[in-house]
Amino acid sequence: MPHIALPNLPGIRGPMAFRPETSKPLNELVEVLLRHPNSLSQGERELIATYVSSENNCHYCQSIHGAIAAAHLEGDEAVVEEVKRDFDAAAISPKLKALLRIAGKVQQDGKKVTAADVEAARAEGATDLEIHDTVLIAAAFCMFNRYVDGLGTVQPRDPELYRERGKRVARDGYVAANLTNVIHPEDAVLVRS
Amino acid sequence: MPHIALPNLPGIRGPMAFRPETSKPLNELVEVLLRHPNSLSQGERELIATYVSSENNCHYCQSIHGAIAAAHLEGDEAVVEEVKRDFDAAAISPKLKALLRIAGKVQQDGKKVTAADVEAARAEGATDLEIHDTVLIAAAFCMFNRYVDGLGTVQPRDPELYRERGKRVARDGYVAANLTNVIHPEDAVLVRS
Repeated sequence: MPHIALPNLPGIRGPMAFRPETSKPLNELVEVLLRHPNSLSQGERELIATYVSSENNCHYCQSIHGAIAAAHLEGDEAVVEEVKRDFDAAAISPKLKALLRIAGKVQQDGKKVTAADVEAARAEGATDLEIHDTVLIAAAFCMFNRYVDGLGTVQPRDPELYRERGKRVARDGYVAANLTNVIHPEDAVLVRS
Repeated sequence: MPHIALPNLPGIRGPMAFRPETSKPLNELVEVLLRHPNSLSQGERELIATYVSSENNCHYCQSIHGAIAAAHLEGDEAVVEEVKRDFDAAAISPKLKALLRIAGKVQQDGKKVTAADVEAARAEGATDLEIHDTVLIAAAFCMFNRYVDGLGTVQPRDPELYRERGKRVARDGYVAANLTNVIHPEDAVLVRS
């Protein structure tokens, strides 16, 4: 049960509906970071978000962003699991591996990122903007994960529910998917979990 | 030296100037959380931000938000130091102590917040909105601290520089203070540090 009286919606959507004044910039932030045109694909950026959420052991965030990543990657859920388990062995580019190494250090403590980590990413072709965005995506999910867990939100366990929502967000984006507090068809199931 | 080629500004202001698309929602988020009308005073909210930044050992963030807190608290820098050292012994309200206990758990891992922590805050008069905002302020500073440290930003050591900037932000707010990339008078010193 959530620690405060939140609307009956899963994960971050409860506090987002509770406090629209803060939801607006939060949704805009993920929209820019994860969806705006970028030399990192939407799938790659969602994999970074998923990996950090997995390291923070946030069930809701790793499940929904894993599902969004898979939706962007033609339904490839295996690569999402590989990235969470051992990204060095995953079927992803050397550049994304180098960026995930930076993201993993940011997840622990920003001060752990070294010049050598950044050089390694550059050697695989990463630009300054890609390195910046990787650091901010990792930092932002350290916020989102704590927000979701710190309020004791409802975090359903059925993967199918995340799959459905993942497809919707991959198609429509964060701002559109959260524009209203409408209960989407899949929520009828989600909120009972 | 920063890990990427950032504008020559201290702390978060370098990456903020580097990437205005993400700075806009980030500035709006702190403006709502730390400055909009709220039953928690601006000084109290800045103390929560300062405490979390101190626990994350982020020099820039704990210094600038400590300075903004002091500016809101009639220049009382002693209480800022007390909160960072041992908030239970600080000259602050029992309610703020209970909220800082929640913030400290969010800083470690949102899952550490217990129903008893939340009940203790309620017993001191905390509302659901205050508990929500405390969790989100703590979570947001886990992001800002990692963003500032993860990019290896310049973090000056002279307290006087933070004092000056703190007074400006306390007076004008985050959005106004960061509306342009203008180098303010104090930056002429800051960027040499």
